[in-house]
Amino acid sequence: MSAMPAGNALPPALAETLRARFADRFQTGAAIRAQHGATTTWIENQPPDAVIFAQSTAEVSDIVALCCGAGVPVIPFGAGSSLEGQLNAPRGGISIDLTRMDRILSVNAEDMDCVVQPGVTRSRLNEYLRDTGLFFPLDPGADATLGGMAATRASGTTAVLYGTMKDVVLSLEAVMPDGRVIRTGHRARKSAAGYDLTRLLVGSEGTLGIITELTLRLRGIPEAVSAARCSFPSVEAASSAVIGALQFGLPFARIELLDAMTVKAVNRHSAQGLPEAPLLLAEFHGSPGTVAEQSRTFGEIARDYGATALAWTVDPEERARLWKARHDVFWAVLGLRPGAKGISTDVCVPISRLAECIAAATARAEELGLTAPIAGHVGDGNFHNLILVDPQAPQELAAAKTYIGWLNDLAVSMEGTCTGEHGIGQGKRPYLEREMGSALDIMVAIKAALDPKGIMNPGKILPERTGEPR
Amino acid sequence: MSAMPAGNALPPALAETLRARFADRFQTGAAIRAQHGATTTWIENQPPDAVIFAQSTAEVSDIVALCCGAGVPVIPFGAGSSLEGQLNAPRGGISIDLTRMDRILSVNAEDMDCVVQPGVTRSRLNEYLRDTGLFFPLDPGADATLGGMAATRASGTTAVLYGTMKDVVLSLEAVMPDGRVIRTGHRARKSAAGYDLTRLLVGSEGTLGIITELTLRLRGIPEAVSAARCSFPSVEAASSAVIGALQFGLPFARIELLDAMTVKAVNRHSAQGLPEAPLLLAEFHGSPGTVAEQSRTFGEIARDYGATALAWTVDPEERARLWKARHDVFWAVLGLRPGAKGISTDVCVPISRLAECIAAATARAEELGLTAPIAGHVGDGNFHNLILVDPQAPQELAAAKTYIGWLNDLAVSMEGTCTGEHGIGQGKRPYLEREMGSALDIMVAIKAALDPKGIMNPGKILPERTGEPR
Repeated sequence: MSAMPAGNALPPALAETLRARFADRFQTGAAIRAQHGATTTWIENQPPDAVIFAQSTAEVSDIVALCCGAGVPVIPFGAGSSLEGQLNAPRGGISIDLTRMDRILSVNAEDMDCVVQPGVTRSRLNEYLRDTGLFFPLDPGADATLGGMAATRASGTTAVLYGTMKDVVLSLEAVMPDGRVIRTGHRARKSAAGYDLTRLLVGSEGTLGIITELTLRLRGIPEAVSAARCSFPSVEAASSAVIGALQFGLPFARIELLDAMTVKAVNRHSAQGLPEAPLLLAEFHGSPGTVAEQSRTFGEIARDYGATALAWTVDPEERARLWKARHDVFWAVLGLRPGAKGISTDVCVPISRLAECIAAATARAEELGLTAPIAGHVGDGNFHNLILVDPQAPQELAAAKTYIGWLNDLAVSMEGTCTGEHGIGQGKRPYLEREMGSALDIMVAIKAALDPKGIMNPGKILPERTGEPR
Repeated sequence: MSAMPAGNALPPALAETLRARFADRFQTGAAIRAQHGATTTWIENQPPDAVIFAQSTAEVSDIVALCCGAGVPVIPFGAGSSLEGQLNAPRGGISIDLTRMDRILSVNAEDMDCVVQPGVTRSRLNEYLRDTGLFFPLDPGADATLGGMAATRASGTTAVLYGTMKDVVLSLEAVMPDGRVIRTGHRARKSAAGYDLTRLLVGSEGTLGIITELTLRLRGIPEAVSAARCSFPSVEAASSAVIGALQFGLPFARIELLDAMTVKAVNRHSAQGLPEAPLLLAEFHGSPGTVAEQSRTFGEIARDYGATALAWTVDPEERARLWKARHDVFWAVLGLRPGAKGISTDVCVPISRLAECIAAATARAEELGLTAPIAGHVGDGNFHNLILVDPQAPQELAAAKTYIGWLNDLAVSMEGTCTGEHGIGQGKRPYLEREMGSALDIMVAIKAALDPKGIMNPGKILPERTGEPR
C-alpha cells in the first residue's frame, strides 16, 4: 500500500471499500501521508494509514460510519497549520482532508452571516466578501481553514474586540462518531435552546465530531481604521498602559505587545530603527472621527505610563508601515538564529499577571540558555513564545520542553490557562490535566458517551487512558 | 411532613439525614414548597418535596451526593424569575435554594472580572461595583440571580453589544450529579484548553450540574451614554433601519422595538403622547463625542427609512425620559386588560426575517382572538410576546398555547430558534425537538453520561423519554 512502512495498516476490507468508492481521492503514498501528520509542530510525525479527499458531508458521513464499524481512527485535516500535533495519527487511521469542501454556500448580508464549508480559508472568505461591505474579523496569523479554526477554537490579534471562534460561530453541521450528521443550531443571532453543542464542538479538535459546515457571524468593514505605536521602558509599563486603557473603555480592535528581543529581531530584519524596548501596537475600528479620537486617547494614556516614540495614523499605507514590525515577527525572530527551528507555544493569564509572567518567562528561558522572544495579544493576557532550537541538538529540544512545561504550569498557577489559542492536541495534554483537575473526568465522560469506540482523532486533548482503539 | 399532600414524598431516611444536617434550613411547608415550584410561568405548579437553603458549595455537594444515592431529584433555585417552568418539580425532590450563597468573593479591577456566588443578583453586583468604575453589563429585565442567569443562558436588552451569559461567564464552579465539585476554567480572558465545559453548563438549566460559583467578565462604565428614539410607519421600516445601521457598523448598546399595540399601551399607561406606530429606542456607550456622533448617525439612517419624531440626548435624566416607554412595557401591557395574566414567550430569528415574523405573529394572534403585543431586542432578531389571558377561561389558555406552538415553529422554519433567551424548561420541550432534530440525541447522550440517574432537574429541556427517576 505504501513505500513507508505503516505501523498500523488498515483492515484490508475497509481499504478495499474506500479505494473502490473514492478512487484516486483515496491516497496511501508515504509523502502524502507524512504531509497529513504533524506539520508545524515539533512533535514527531505520525502519519495516518491513508488520506481521503472528501467532497461532501455525505462522503464524510460514509467514511466515518465505515471507520466506526471497523474501529479505525479518523482525523480531520484542513490547512495543516495547527501547532500542537492535532493532526498526527498516533494510532494510524484515515486523515479526512477537507480542503476540497471549500464552497461558500451563502452570504446573508442583512443578517451579517454566512454559511461555508470547512475547507474555506479565512483569507478566501474575506476576498469573497470584499464587495459586500462585510468581513470575517478573526485573524490567527496562519491562513487556516475555517473548519480548523473552529475545531481548535482559534482567535488571534483581533480577539480583544471580536472574540474567538466560540464567539463568531453561530452554528455548525457536524458528522458525529457513528456517521450521523447533526446541526447544532440555525442562523439566530442568539439562542437559549438546550445544551450548547456549537460551543462543545468548537475547540474539540476533531475528537467529538467532524465539522462539515459553519454558519459564521460577519462584521461590517469599518469605515476607518487607525493604528498607533509606542515604546515603553518595561513590559510592566506597557501592560499597565493597556490595563488603564481597557478600564477607560478604549475598544481596541488589536493591541499587540512585542518584547525587547522581538523588537531587536525586527530591527535587524528590516531596519525599522525602533527603540529596542517593549513595543505596543494598537488598532481601532470605527468612524473616522471616532478612531482618530481613540488613537489620541490611547496616546495620552500611554504617555502616563512612560511611553515614548508615539506615532499614530488613519492612513492605510502609513498604517501598514506602523504595523510592519508585527507582521515581520515570525521571520524576523527566525532570523535571529539562521537554521534554527521555531517552536511556538502560548499561554494566557489574567492581564494583571501578564508582566510578571513575561518577566519570569524571560528569566527562565535565559537560565535554560534558550532564545525565546515574546509577542502577545496583550489585551487578552495571551502571549506566544517562539523558541529557537537547533533541530540536531537533542539537549536544546529537551530544554525547550522543560521550559514549555514550566511556563504552562506557571500560567495555570496564575489563574490562567496552558493555552489561549493553540489548543491542546498532543503537546499540551499533561498541562490540561493539571489545569482542569476533576473537570477532566467530565471531558472524558463526554468523549466516552459520544465516541465509545474512540475513533475520533485519538490521542488528542484527553489522557492516554481514554479508550483508544487498536 | 407537610400540609399539602406531596405526591412524591422523600425517602424517610434521606429526609431524616437532611433534617438533622440542615435543621430549619430544611423546609417542607406547603407554601414554601409551592413558592419554589413554577413561579412566573403559566405552567401548573409542581412543588418539590422539600426546600433546603444551602450556604456553601460543600453543602450543595453533600445534598446532591445524598440525593444521588437515594435517586431523588434536585432542582436549583435562585430568584424564581425563569419563565418556562424551569423550577417546577414534576418528580418531586429537593429544591436547593441558593439565595443565601450571595457573597461577592472578589473583584479584580485590573482584569475587569469578578468571582461571585450564584445567589448574587445582577443589581446587587452592580451596586457593589459602583465605585470601581466597572459594571456587569447584562440586563434581562428581572433582577435575576447570576447563577440563574447563567443556568438559563439569559441575556436581555444589552446583548447586542455585550453578548449573552455565554459571553460574560469566564468560568464556573459546579456541583455535578454525583456531588463532585468541578471548576471549568480559571480567570484567563480566553482559552483553547479542551472541551468548553463552561459553555456546556451555561444554558443547561440545572440538568447537568448546579452552578456554585461564577467568574464573570465586567466592563468599564461608559464615560457617556446617549439615547435615541424614533417612530416608523411599519415594523418593516424599523427593522430595515436597524439592519442598515448594523451594516454601517453602528455599535448599538441597546436597540429595542415596540410594536404599535405596545406603544398604545404605553401611552395609555403614562400619557407619553408617542405616535401610535412602531417605535425604536437606541442607546450608545462610549466617550461623549463618540456617542453623540453615533446617535446623530442613527438618526440620519433612521430618517432614510421614514423615521419621524426623532429625539436623542446624552443627558441622563432626559435619557430616562426618552426610554420610559421601554421601562413601562410590562405594566403598561398588563393594563390593556386589567385582571388578565400575562404569558410571556420569546423567539429569535435572523434579523432579515424579523419584520415578516412579527407581521405573521400579529395576524395569527388576531385570528385567535388574542391580545399579544410585541417588544423586541431587534438587533438580535429576538422578540417577546406578552399574551394577555383570562386565567379563568380555559379556551383562552388553549388559544395562547396554540399561538405559542405556532410561533415557535414559525421561528424555526425561518432558520431561527424557539427561544432567544427564556430557555426550554418544561414549556418549550416540543419545539426544541423540532428545532434540533438528531442533535437532540446528542444532548440526551450527554445527559445520560453525566447524570445516569437523571436526578438533576428532571423533566426540563429534554424529552420525557430521557431517564428520570422514581
